[in-house]
Amino acid sequence: MNIEQNQIEKHNDSLLTAHQRRFAFLQEEWEHVDLESVIQKLVDFQIAIPSWALGTGGTRFGRFAIAGGEPRNIEEKIEDVGLLHALNGSSGAISLHIPWDIPQNAEELRQLASGYGLKFDAMNSNTFQDQAGSAHSYKFGSLQNVNKDVRKQAIEHNIEVIKHGIALGSDALTVWLADGSCFPGQLNFRRAFENTLESLQEIYSALPEDWKMFVEYKAFEPNFYSTTVGDWGQSLLYASKLGKKAYTLVDLGHHLPNANIEQIVALLLMEGKLGGFHFNDSKYGDDDLTAGSIKPYQLFLIFNDLVEGMDAKGMNHARDLGWMIDASHNVKDPLEDLLQSVEAIMIAYAQALLVDRKALSEAQQNNDVAKAQEILQNTFRSDLRALVAEARLRAGAALLPIGLYRYLNVRNTLVNQRGKTSATGL
Amino acid sequence: MNIEQNQIEKHNDSLLTAHQRRFAFLQEEWEHVDLESVIQKLVDFQIAIPSWALGTGGTRFGRFAIAGGEPRNIEEKIEDVGLLHALNGSSGAISLHIPWDIPQNAEELRQLASGYGLKFDAMNSNTFQDQAGSAHSYKFGSLQNVNKDVRKQAIEHNIEVIKHGIALGSDALTVWLADGSCFPGQLNFRRAFENTLESLQEIYSALPEDWKMFVEYKAFEPNFYSTTVGDWGQSLLYASKLGKKAYTLVDLGHHLPNANIEQIVALLLMEGKLGGFHFNDSKYGDDDLTAGSIKPYQLFLIFNDLVEGMDAKGMNHARDLGWMIDASHNVKDPLEDLLQSVEAIMIAYAQALLVDRKALSEAQQNNDVAKAQEILQNTFRSDLRALVAEARLRAGAALLPIGLYRYLNVRNTLVNQRGKTSATGL
Amino acid sequence: MNIEQNQIEKHNDSLLTAHQRRFAFLQEEWEHVDLESVIQKLVDFQIAIPSWALGTGGTRFGRFAIAGGEPRNIEEKIEDVGLLHALNGSSGAISLHIPWDIPQNAEELRQLASGYGLKFDAMNSNTFQDQAGSAHSYKFGSLQNVNKDVRKQAIEHNIEVIKHGIALGSDALTVWLADGSCFPGQLNFRRAFENTLESLQEIYSALPEDWKMFVEYKAFEPNFYSTTVGDWGQSLLYASKLGKKAYTLVDLGHHLPNANIEQIVALLLMEGKLGGFHFNDSKYGDDDLTAGSIKPYQLFLIFNDLVEGMDAKGMNHARDLGWMIDASHNVKDPLEDLLQSVEAIMIAYAQALLVDRKALSEAQQNNDVAKAQEILQNTFRSDLRALVAEARLRAGAALLPIGLYRYLNVRNTLVNQRGKTSATGL
Amino acid sequence: MNIEQNQIEKHNDSLLTAHQRRFAFLQEEWEHVDLESVIQKLVDFQIAIPSWALGTGGTRFGRFAIAGGEPRNIEEKIEDVGLLHALNGSSGAISLHIPWDIPQNAEELRQLASGYGLKFDAMNSNTFQDQAGSAHSYKFGSLQNVNKDVRKQAIEHNIEVIKHGIALGSDALTVWLADGSCFPGQLNFRRAFENTLESLQEIYSALPEDWKMFVEYKAFEPNFYSTTVGDWGQSLLYASKLGKKAYTLVDLGHHLPNANIEQIVALLLMEGKLGGFHFNDSKYGDDDLTAGSIKPYQLFLIFNDLVEGMDAKGMNHARDLGWMIDASHNVKDPLEDLLQSVEAIMIAYAQALLVDRKALSEAQQNNDVAKAQEILQNTFRSDLRALVAEARLRAGAALLPIGLYRYLNVRNTLVNQRGKTSATGL
Repeated sequence: MNIEQNQIEKHNDSLLTAHQRRFAFLQEEWEHVDLESVIQKLVDFQIAIPSWALGTGGTRFGRFAIAGGEPRNIEEKIEDVGLLHALNGSSGAISLHIPWDIPQNAEELRQLASGYGLKFDAMNSNTFQDQAGSAHSYKFGSLQNVNKDVRKQAIEHNIEVIKHGIALGSDALTVWLADGSCFPGQLNFRRAFENTLESLQEIYSALPEDWKMFVEYKAFEPNFYSTTVGDWGQSLLYASKLGKKAYTLVDLGHHLPNANIEQIVALLLMEGKLGGFHFNDSKYGDDDLTAGSIKPYQLFLIFNDLVEGMDAKGMNHARDLGWMIDASHNVKDPLEDLLQSVEAIMIAYAQALLVDRKALSEAQQNNDVAKAQEILQNTFRSDLRALVAEARLRAGAALLPIGLYRYLNVRNTLVNQRGKTSATGL
Repeated sequence: MNIEQNQIEKHNDSLLTAHQRRFAFLQEEWEHVDLESVIQKLVDFQIAIPSWALGTGGTRFGRFAIAGGEPRNIEEKIEDVGLLHALNGSSGAISLHIPWDIPQNAEELRQLASGYGLKFDAMNSNTFQDQAGSAHSYKFGSLQNVNKDVRKQAIEHNIEVIKHGIALGSDALTVWLADGSCFPGQLNFRRAFENTLESLQEIYSALPEDWKMFVEYKAFEPNFYSTTVGDWGQSLLYASKLGKKAYTLVDLGHHLPNANIEQIVALLLMEGKLGGFHFNDSKYGDDDLTAGSIKPYQLFLIFNDLVEGMDAKGMNHARDLGWMIDASHNVKDPLEDLLQSVEAIMIAYAQALLVDRKALSEAQQNNDVAKAQEILQNTFRSDLRALVAEARLRAGAALLPIGLYRYLNVRNTLVNQRGKTSATGL
Repeated sequence: MNIEQNQIEKHNDSLLTAHQRRFAFLQEEWEHVDLESVIQKLVDFQIAIPSWALGTGGTRFGRFAIAGGEPRNIEEKIEDVGLLHALNGSSGAISLHIPWDIPQNAEELRQLASGYGLKFDAMNSNTFQDQAGSAHSYKFGSLQNVNKDVRKQAIEHNIEVIKHGIALGSDALTVWLADGSCFPGQLNFRRAFENTLESLQEIYSALPEDWKMFVEYKAFEPNFYSTTVGDWGQSLLYASKLGKKAYTLVDLGHHLPNANIEQIVALLLMEGKLGGFHFNDSKYGDDDLTAGSIKPYQLFLIFNDLVEGMDAKGMNHARDLGWMIDASHNVKDPLEDLLQSVEAIMIAYAQALLVDRKALSEAQQNNDVAKAQEILQNTFRSDLRALVAEARLRAGAALLPIGLYRYLNVRNTLVNQRGKTSATGL
Repeated sequence: MNIEQNQIEKHNDSLLTAHQRRFAFLQEEWEHVDLESVIQKLVDFQIAIPSWALGTGGTRFGRFAIAGGEPRNIEEKIEDVGLLHALNGSSGAISLHIPWDIPQNAEELRQLASGYGLKFDAMNSNTFQDQAGSAHSYKFGSLQNVNKDVRKQAIEHNIEVIKHGIALGSDALTVWLADGSCFPGQLNFRRAFENTLESLQEIYSALPEDWKMFVEYKAFEPNFYSTTVGDWGQSLLYASKLGKKAYTLVDLGHHLPNANIEQIVALLLMEGKLGGFHFNDSKYGDDDLTAGSIKPYQLFLIFNDLVEGMDAKGMNHARDLGWMIDASHNVKDPLEDLLQSVEAIMIAYAQALLVDRKALSEAQQNNDVAKAQEILQNTFRSDLRALVAEARLRAGAALLPIGLYRYLNVRNTLVNQRGKTSATGL
């Protein structure tokens, strides 16, 4: 289904008076700031939607279906992201996963996506599951495997993913490895690292000049004793040894308890090795919850360091890092959940853009800790939703995306069109 | 020093126009809500200041002094809390600690406190340190001690604290025990529990009819293997066995990583055994940071469950639980830090008061998880600072407490009056 | 397949000389102790094998098959446990799971099990997954559900499980609930507790007089914000309100990071409310690894408190608590993994039995912490494998269970008999 | 006091028969192994004692004295380490801390230490506390400080420490920084890193050619939001940028919950950047408990990777890394506690030396996870205390160090000689 521009406008009209009052209030509150440039940054900022997050997620204990209407193929996944992008104007990219989304006709897909205003973001390979008919099993790892044939199969799969990406106009490969071990003694850590590095080097050498490779790290799960790319330090080691096209990718849920993620982000930026993000939120592990649903202040602090660090390097917020969501939707409609994630990210970004950098820098220089806290809390406590909504309005999207989604009964329409379907994914 | 009413009014006048604009905006946004009753609840809500938090804190690695001006005695501590209360109108109580605050003349202290509009909140005993001249050491615990004489000394100390409290008009005793063990085998857990219970029973029997006993729990530190009142389950066991005057006290920093504190709070309320709070914030352990400085959403969620649960029981928000701060101030001016803590707590309380309970209950009844999240985030993302400021204004306090504190150079005045002093505490 | 007694004896014969040397050494080392009574306790101690752990486990990211030979039905599961019990003499019970193991003919199953020397341990219900054809979904919980019809369905399922258990000669029901929530606001914690309690009460009332109900708790997963029976404190609340047949069940992997499980165990024993265990090990969450593979000293410390506490109450080690394994086998042969778990548990139990209780009690009474540590480490550092092996020898089992398992090529035989099968389970 | 050789011999004589029986048993058990070479490695292995760990430790809540007899000066600290070394033959080095141990006459100290068979291990600087009379405060950090003058003072202090070390014959500087922040916004992470790096570079340039600089990391405490050398990844970044004399130092207690320390160790070794260790144990944070008292299996696993990794690089176990204890003694006699730590470390090292490397490597190559676990558990479960004791015996030390310590009433003697003293330290 498509959401028509006039449907959006009509819904917006009903909300416009209240919105204008709120936006006018914000303009007055922030009159000393160039709000127009902030709004333009919000308009430009796009967060890629992962193709595997368009269906219901689950755990090892099972998966509970929603009403249905989940996309049955890559075309319908693009359609779903098109719906999101029509609603919020901030979801202008899709991140594909091979083999769940093997494109049959890349050119047609590019045109389809383009019609929705979508680009193809980073491609994702999968060497954490065995595929029917594959010669070797990844039970004991892929790029780390003690068996050279298994490594070779995994390398070739990644190279194939790059080729799909080239055809689609993507320019990045995200390598997330489940490789690791479940028990002490299972692995020789050094050899596992060396095997993984050697494998990554082969994949890296197949990367086009203008591509990036994102080396994702994760503390634990599905291996429960060690992970071979287990933290940012290990990812940075790989990325440094690989070369200038290799970067670290930060998934917010892939850390040990209490980790200071914003510091990691700031240091990776400093090193020129931050590649991008998988946004989500979590309380216990890689819970893959809606971004900003558990620790919204942490999300803001991450963006605070991102904005400061990117500006210090003269980077383009929208283009120079990869912004992706990676979440599961076990108890919500996946599309509603994604709308909530994007909204939370946009709010955090807006808050970070409004931080008084000069005053903060002065407070830091004076070790005025209470003042520094006041400055950060001042923007965090400000209600910037009308600013984000204004950016949507200007982009031709909905003032209230989730409101319009429900008003239009999008899920019902999808169920009617597609049936009680269940999408590929976890 | 005193802050004069006209000093407050003059400062408020300079901020009044902006405040009125913001408050008017809020009134329009929340026109469907009885804001006046919300404001009255905010005016009534008082958070006790612990006498030991008026000076600079430290760690085992040392303590770094601030400029000075720290209170030298109980009278100056009351003066400091008086300053805070004059500024924010929400700090109308002081929580004393024995032996750091042994009152010489209770009647004079009551009059002094009363002059500042202050009450004496829960009394705190100390059996985690040895005092000069005491016969027995608490090295191996106090109420749990294998030596009956040590237990007796600790019991008598608590009874003495109750007596001081009676003289001052307090009506609660907070018992925080450092008791526990550092190594496996050091303690027999069962006997430690039994000794502690027996000791608490003796203290309990010395409690006046209208008093409460708060049994505080803590997961670890200063003992690093076990703590004898280590979690809410243990505290509830003690409180249940003691009787109807005994309650569990929740210090936000006293949990294992990732604990769901709001659920604990809801269940203790359900059981009629929640006594009160020690507010602070933390990232790693009992970090004793400013309330709301790390996880403000968690603070809101706690108040969300408090408001819902207290209303369900017909409890009085301001009076039926003990509200206290327990924080350290290692890198900030203690008084500024306390102002920030109180502000964060008041905001969280205001947010919780504005949650649309009926809509939330319906969303829960319909398992509409996305909607429930929207409802909570809607008030959390709202900027309610003007509401809290309005409550202050009506209470005769400052619109911008920390602004006025700095404008009046309070710390400088205190340094001039008191010298380069350092207060008792940790 | 069956392992014949003479196969065991023949294998034992080849190891006997070395075993006797080791056992003789132990007898000399522990000559001041009644080793015979220790050995008898080891012989008597039986650990139930869960029927769902006989096949390969997995995570939400997938499952990697082993060679096959996994049991296809309840009869083959009993056969597998029979193999384990023949090998180690300590796995004389099976814990069934409904609906994965619905018995068609209880009497035949009893005879089959009896032939292997097996009893039917606690029955396990499943309300964390939807079954084909069931009227209601557990997506939003079972016993906690806001919908009375869902709760009713879950209650009736549990009652059906009890009936199956009665027919088989079991005498306990383990209730593990995945009930909880993924997002703040999703649940009203109090109502979720009340619904769950009411549901448990209905199940409890269907319990035969001589049965126990085990209320299992878990901190997180598959719900990632709250769990409705989330910790021992909550489980104890339910068990206390239910009545004398209700107990708390401790799964070692169901805690927050750094929890002191041995203290929890000691206090539950003190309260007369410890029901039993699900043994496994973990580093990060509910990793379900082999018992003793990550933190063997913790396993010993738990048994140390169990032995002390049970003896203090005059309880029978083998009979008065439920001893079960609950582990997953993602990278090992399930039967080998279970043999390793049982071995680790038996060693920990043996170590605990040999702790010098009198000396430990004296050291505790004298606050001689270094001595207390020496006493515990003395038995932990002792190599008691020959003692456990001797108990196996006397029970007619194998000196080296995993050695014999491999020597006999048990897995190959099972693959040949059953094919490339995959068992029910997670 | 001194422990005379004949006192040791006499005590050993009383234990010799039992020891010989145990050692003979081990010889038979490990007849296929060159035990003599293992024993020689144990004899050669020396663990440095930190001068600040010879007195009673404490927490921010206080310190409880032991009977006394704590060293009053650097000479008595050397005397204490001499006692330990006489007892266990494995504590042949002392690690000094400036300004707690400023040597007045280096040559005399060298002779004194040499008389006890002691070397001067890594020197430790202190920029986490202010010293009386110093011009600048480290309240807001030292090498990271926004104020160049503060950084300069800290740099000069470190250079002074190097000079003291040169005079004493040390060849390493350990830099542990408490630098970090307590609140979001307090620091600019990038600038803090850059300031710290620049400061370290200045110190590094003052390092003699044959010295090493150990950059220690710590996750949290005394700063509770961020630490500027917060994890191994950050330490490695500094060490790599500094140059070939700079290394990472691993303190076992300085990690986030659940960290896989052995993997970190293996990777640092692989990178040629592992400098050494601070041994201790912990359950919650930097608890500074006796090595091996909480997680002895983890200690073994670390040594397992150390032995494998050092052998792979042809490194000398005893000389090529820095082995130090860093523990606090809050409830035990410090000297007894240190004896227990050294014993636990020696046992873990002995276990690691006996791991069947060839079989383990084969099991890894075959992904035989159960076998790999059996191999590691086989040495861990073996009782190797007699092997460690034999090494002591051959080194002229005590078979039972803590037994002899108590037999000789060492603490009483020290109290008599020194009085109720309290040593410098934390």
